Amino acid sequence: MSRTPADLSSFTSEALGRVRARGPLVHCITNSVVVNFTANALLAAGAAPAMVDIPDEAGPFATVADGLLVNLGTPTAEQRAAMVEAAEAANATGTPWVLDPVAVGSLPVRTALAEQLRDLGPTVVRGNASEIIAVSGSGGGGRGVDATDDVEGAVESARALAVRTGGVVAVSGPVDVVTDGERLVRIANGDPLLTRITGGGCALGALMAAFAAVDDDRLATTVAAVTVYTVAAELAAKQSAGPGTFGPAFLDALASIDAADLDARARLS
Amino acid sequence: MSRTPADLSSFTSEALGRVRARGPLVHCITNSVVVNFTANALLAAGAAPAMVDIPDEAGPFATVADGLLVNLGTPTAEQRAAMVEAAEAANATGTPWVLDPVAVGSLPVRTALAEQLRDLGPTVVRGNASEIIAVSGSGGGGRGVDATDDVEGAVESARALAVRTGGVVAVSGPVDVVTDGERLVRIANGDPLLTRITGGGCALGALMAAFAAVDDDRLATTVAAVTVYTVAAELAAKQSAGPGTFGPAFLDALASIDAADLDARARLS
Amino acid sequence: MSRTPADLSSFTSEALGRVRARGPLVHCITNSVVVNFTANALLAAGAAPAMVDIPDEAGPFATVADGLLVNLGTPTAEQRAAMVEAAEAANATGTPWVLDPVAVGSLPVRTALAEQLRDLGPTVVRGNASEIIAVSGSGGGGRGVDATDDVEGAVESARALAVRTGGVVAVSGPVDVVTDGERLVRIANGDPLLTRITGGGCALGALMAAFAAVDDDRLATTVAAVTVYTVAAELAAKQSAGPGTFGPAFLDALASIDAADLDARARLS
Repeated sequence: MSRTPADLSSFTSEALGRVRARGPLVHCITNSVVVNFTANALLAAGAAPAMVDIPDEAGPFATVADGLLVNLGTPTAEQRAAMVEAAEAANATGTPWVLDPVAVGSLPVRTALAEQLRDLGPTVVRGNASEIIAVSGSGGGGRGVDATDDVEGAVESARALAVRTGGVVAVSGPVDVVTDGERLVRIANGDPLLTRITGGGCALGALMAAFAAVDDDRLATTVAAVTVYTVAAELAAKQSAGPGTFGPAFLDALASIDAADLDARARLS
Repeated sequence: MSRTPADLSSFTSEALGRVRARGPLVHCITNSVVVNFTANALLAAGAAPAMVDIPDEAGPFATVADGLLVNLGTPTAEQRAAMVEAAEAANATGTPWVLDPVAVGSLPVRTALAEQLRDLGPTVVRGNASEIIAVSGSGGGGRGVDATDDVEGAVESARALAVRTGGVVAVSGPVDVVTDGERLVRIANGDPLLTRITGGGCALGALMAAFAAVDDDRLATTVAAVTVYTVAAELAAKQSAGPGTFGPAFLDALASIDAADLDARARLS
Repeated sequence: MSRTPADLSSFTSEALGRVRARGPLVHCITNSVVVNFTANALLAAGAAPAMVDIPDEAGPFATVADGLLVNLGTPTAEQRAAMVEAAEAANATGTPWVLDPVAVGSLPVRTALAEQLRDLGPTVVRGNASEIIAVSGSGGGGRGVDATDDVEGAVESARALAVRTGGVVAVSGPVDVVTDGERLVRIANGDPLLTRITGGGCALGALMAAFAAVDDDRLATTVAAVTVYTVAAELAAKQSAGPGTFGPAFLDALASIDAADLDARARLS
């Protein structure tokens, strides 16, 4: 039940292998800024993306998908209805789903929606420190998509949120934190270039949905997704001349990363 | 009237030259995932993209455009209205138009819309095997954007659909098939990396609309678009380290591909 | 008050330094085609993008943002409402804002909206020659996103529009023109590849909003944005094999461009 960091590290390679072997169908309702990059990140990792984000289709589709991502980045009225429909359908069929509450806190429409979705019990909530604090109900929230709070300052909010949802909560930052309310894992991988491209965090949420589809230990699958993603960023940074060439290099790295890369670089604690 | 494969091969270079010389204005109503890649693919090939996808603008614009793409990937309510408006306007003025019925079959909103659009008589219908079977009315359809049926299994559906619409039908796969109901051409080009990026098929639909603008033999223009596109994929694969770098390399290849490349590589039968 | 071309040239490096140091929060309401590239261009240049484009959020957000971009490329009904809300809020708080009237002229919905927004007094209006002529009320407008008029033919319209809005007007083309109605600056930088990728002009509008946030002389900040952008295009063209690899190279160049590059290449008059 309670994997050690070493167990989680070896599980990461195993989970990546399962994603590639099974090609989980990941249903995404996400924002217009990152939707292309998110689909390409899923494809690179071996999953099968499908962006079905209108009412009357999102619900039925969530029941056949292997995982679902609900990302609040640019929530149109149709998407908002589709998100609730999809989350409820996912709950009904046991499809794991990830909530990414982008920029919640002061923006009224998405903040109310995030609270509604939170109360539907997402399998995973992923955000930066400000977003996690805001959606946990324990603090203010940032001015946009950048975290104004730091990850360690969000740890107690993350634990409380995980207890509240009965799921897993992941806080992105220089060191990522993943918790199920009891266990808490830190992943000290990544590269600053990941913050210099848009969608660096959003596509990670999609990857968490893909990994959640291949095992029931969602703390472990979430740690695996973060580790694969942030180690791929390290590999990509070595091939990049700046943020522009980093994007394609990162997708290449997601496609080529293997157990040896993960063993050599993963820094879990 | 009835070009041989050798004729079609030489026509492909000629049609590419016309696209580059004339820069046809291609009106696209397409999905949020691939809209950027589609516009860039058209620009790379020498065409002029314009994404006009709201009601009251889509109809008038389709009458001045040289070609129209209607892609059902993420069909918002406004886009759905715009699609019908544009298709009817295109019919009224003789603007060639391409229908790409993404993921039709089990998803109810787009499936009904695809049937409505099919009955308006698209110049070209492009899809994977599952989509073509579904829109032809002869079978089930896949679970998402991936074909669960194979291309050869869709040939009879494609022929029947072409007869029904009075147009051309193209089925994408490892070997692409293009038919007008009578003639049937196979194009055995391409690279698996084209399936590892999102929009690999969607942008091809846009290219078919660009090529349809430069000649009235739409079997020939559709074969030309497929051939240019899939040979460009082969050239790009040689320059790529993975799916991330393949995307930019593919756009470069669309811009640089010439008659010599096509002569050396095109595999039509 | 009245900077010379040499002053503007040295101001450009200074303004770029301020953007990188301050990371202005740029609120964008923009089209689906270029939204990803626009966010990445802002990040590369050192600004912080936030795409908040729904009613009830766009207004409040414009009051906390450092700059606002309103781009009419694919204006959904929700975005149209959000644009007016944001522009009015920006005016109320003095947030500088840029209007990019994409493809106005013959398309009825956006043309009426562009006139409404123009009359709200944008800090900067940016477009190609046809768009500037159309939004100035002095001529016809093109058939799509490509200018059918040339830049010099739009100079008088640009001056008149600047007088009318009380702001700055920028006309993009082989030689860019920026005017506040009195002063007129020409920037003879850039590369044709910038016209072979979608969003080449749209992302420049976002950069203008970022630069407008760091100084009150908006003729100077607009010239600075154009100069940084078009010199970056020259640097990127040297690293590119075509339009596909130009995109990533351009973002790299925006991130790495420095005063030496600007001094060596800027051609202001």
